[in-house]
Amino acid sequence: MKTFSNQEREVLTESVNSKPKFPKKVRIVEVGPRDGLQNEPDIVPTSVKIDFINRLSSTGFRTIEATSFVSPKWVPQMADHTEVLKGITKFPDVSYPVLVPNVKGLEAAIEAGAKEIAVFGAASETFSKKNINCSMEESEERFRRVAQAASLHGIQVRGYVSCVCGCPYEGPVNPQVVAKTAASLYEIGCYEVSLGDTIGVGTPGSMRTMLEEVLKYVPAQNLAVHCHDTYGQALANILIALELGISVVDSSVSGLGGCPYAKGASGNVATEDLVYMLHGMGIETGINFDKLLETGQFICNALNRPSGSKVSRAISKL
Amino acid sequence: MKTFSNQEREVLTESVNSKPKFPKKVRIVEVGPRDGLQNEPDIVPTSVKIDFINRLSSTGFRTIEATSFVSPKWVPQMADHTEVLKGITKFPDVSYPVLVPNVKGLEAAIEAGAKEIAVFGAASETFSKKNINCSMEESEERFRRVAQAASLHGIQVRGYVSCVCGCPYEGPVNPQVVAKTAASLYEIGCYEVSLGDTIGVGTPGSMRTMLEEVLKYVPAQNLAVHCHDTYGQALANILIALELGISVVDSSVSGLGGCPYAKGASGNVATEDLVYMLHGMGIETGINFDKLLETGQFICNALNRPSGSKVSRAISKL
Repeated sequence: MKTFSNQEREVLTESVNSKPKFPKKVRIVEVGPRDGLQNEPDIVPTSVKIDFINRLSSTGFRTIEATSFVSPKWVPQMADHTEVLKGITKFPDVSYPVLVPNVKGLEAAIEAGAKEIAVFGAASETFSKKNINCSMEESEERFRRVAQAASLHGIQVRGYVSCVCGCPYEGPVNPQVVAKTAASLYEIGCYEVSLGDTIGVGTPGSMRTMLEEVLKYVPAQNLAVHCHDTYGQALANILIALELGISVVDSSVSGLGGCPYAKGASGNVATEDLVYMLHGMGIETGINFDKLLETGQFICNALNRPSGSKVSRAISKL
Repeated sequence: MKTFSNQEREVLTESVNSKPKFPKKVRIVEVGPRDGLQNEPDIVPTSVKIDFINRLSSTGFRTIEATSFVSPKWVPQMADHTEVLKGITKFPDVSYPVLVPNVKGLEAAIEAGAKEIAVFGAASETFSKKNINCSMEESEERFRRVAQAASLHGIQVRGYVSCVCGCPYEGPVNPQVVAKTAASLYEIGCYEVSLGDTIGVGTPGSMRTMLEEVLKYVPAQNLAVHCHDTYGQALANILIALELGISVVDSSVSGLGGCPYAKGASGNVATEDLVYMLHGMGIETGINFDKLLETGQFICNALNRPSGSKVSRAISKL
């Protein structure tokens, strides 16, 4: 069996890429209880939500987005936010951020015991108006007031930018607009900005271009990615983010969820598939994989739906 | 808006990875008509197969695996191999390889007008015995005779190695065994060796380790990857292969197929999802994307099944 010298190999293969340096650890932000459940057509019982979050806590997640303090008029599925946040067992080393749209929402969240909140911006004017009913500039001002008020109460703020690779109304989104929106959230005090490919149209090409632009303004350790798998690209896109030094990834157990305002936007990347990939790459997550599969089965059984995780489906067939 | 200097960014982000160099062009080997259809429970009419292959030819593929000259006892779905191969329109710049298990199959394939064949090895002893009914050593000898006979007739030979990341019977597979099997196929004269993650268990971690081992013996330009999406890892794994200089990828329109002998091995990576990713990365494939979507719809309608391509499902919902 002939072997090639390294030099021969380089000439033969043009494989001169150096081995990418991936992060040793990745923190997964589990968004199933909020981003996942908020799109369920039937109201999920509060007790199921609480059980679900408690199971996630014992699975090893450090950040679990628990609920949303938006008006029940807009998102009836999250009307029980106070009961959920008060009802869950707070693990000492786990953060339970809740989405808040404005100062009023913040006050309700604080009242219910929130220690971390998330604000939700967009890199598209039309999406911003349709999703949070204000312009991008107005939302920046609104979130600045929320962040200032949160700071007074010692509340951590996480920021979302949606539509970072494309908008359901406007099509392709300019990476410079994404960068400006992310930088603005970072400047108003968000400790972490999560870049959301809300409709899942991004590829490793557009993802890289966008991230390289954002990284000019926000350091990698303050960034997360939030990929929807609508076009099957989520894990490939996450791989690119990891190569660029980003080590926080949002995902949803069993691929629950989507975006009620975004046409065709079904499904966050499934946490099971993400953890399978990361562990396969030798990257630590702190997640107990078997418990993760059980928790995914639990919520799918409760919702009476098949899992959106290919890993879960493959393993359950074995 | 504060910007960081490059130096500051490196310190802040530790994002010191150089940009991976992907191939400018990728040749896709469409395996739907063979690897896809062979697992369909109902016999697909010969006329549908011929129509399917003709549509694929006009979609821009340069290599379309057309059928299999195995015994109808083993794979009844491919019993019409001669009619299919004789019935399709041969586009001048398209190759239509057919699978052959032995010299007898080769003779039948030549009789039917084949100009390219594929032989199918495995990197697992148990899989080899169960799938092609001989040991790995016996298969090497058998394929050597096939390759010699093919060479006398000016027939090109493509080689497959299955189970490159894991075996349904033996579990994890030693990358050195994969490398040895691939090197053997390369040495007997295969112009290209396709490395198949038959049960889709590979991750960017195991995929990279395996490929780095194979690349010690076979140059990147003589390698292809063949990824099943059973665990949702296919596109991420393909991305790793591209980074290592491999520029030939097998896939199946609408994610048709799997492996009848491998437990839980449902679904090749969908060509639509692969092409969407590659085009999004600015990589040329020669494929007309709209025609590809139409061809996927055609075969799904003919088989009365939903598409296994997320891209196809997302776009059809728009």
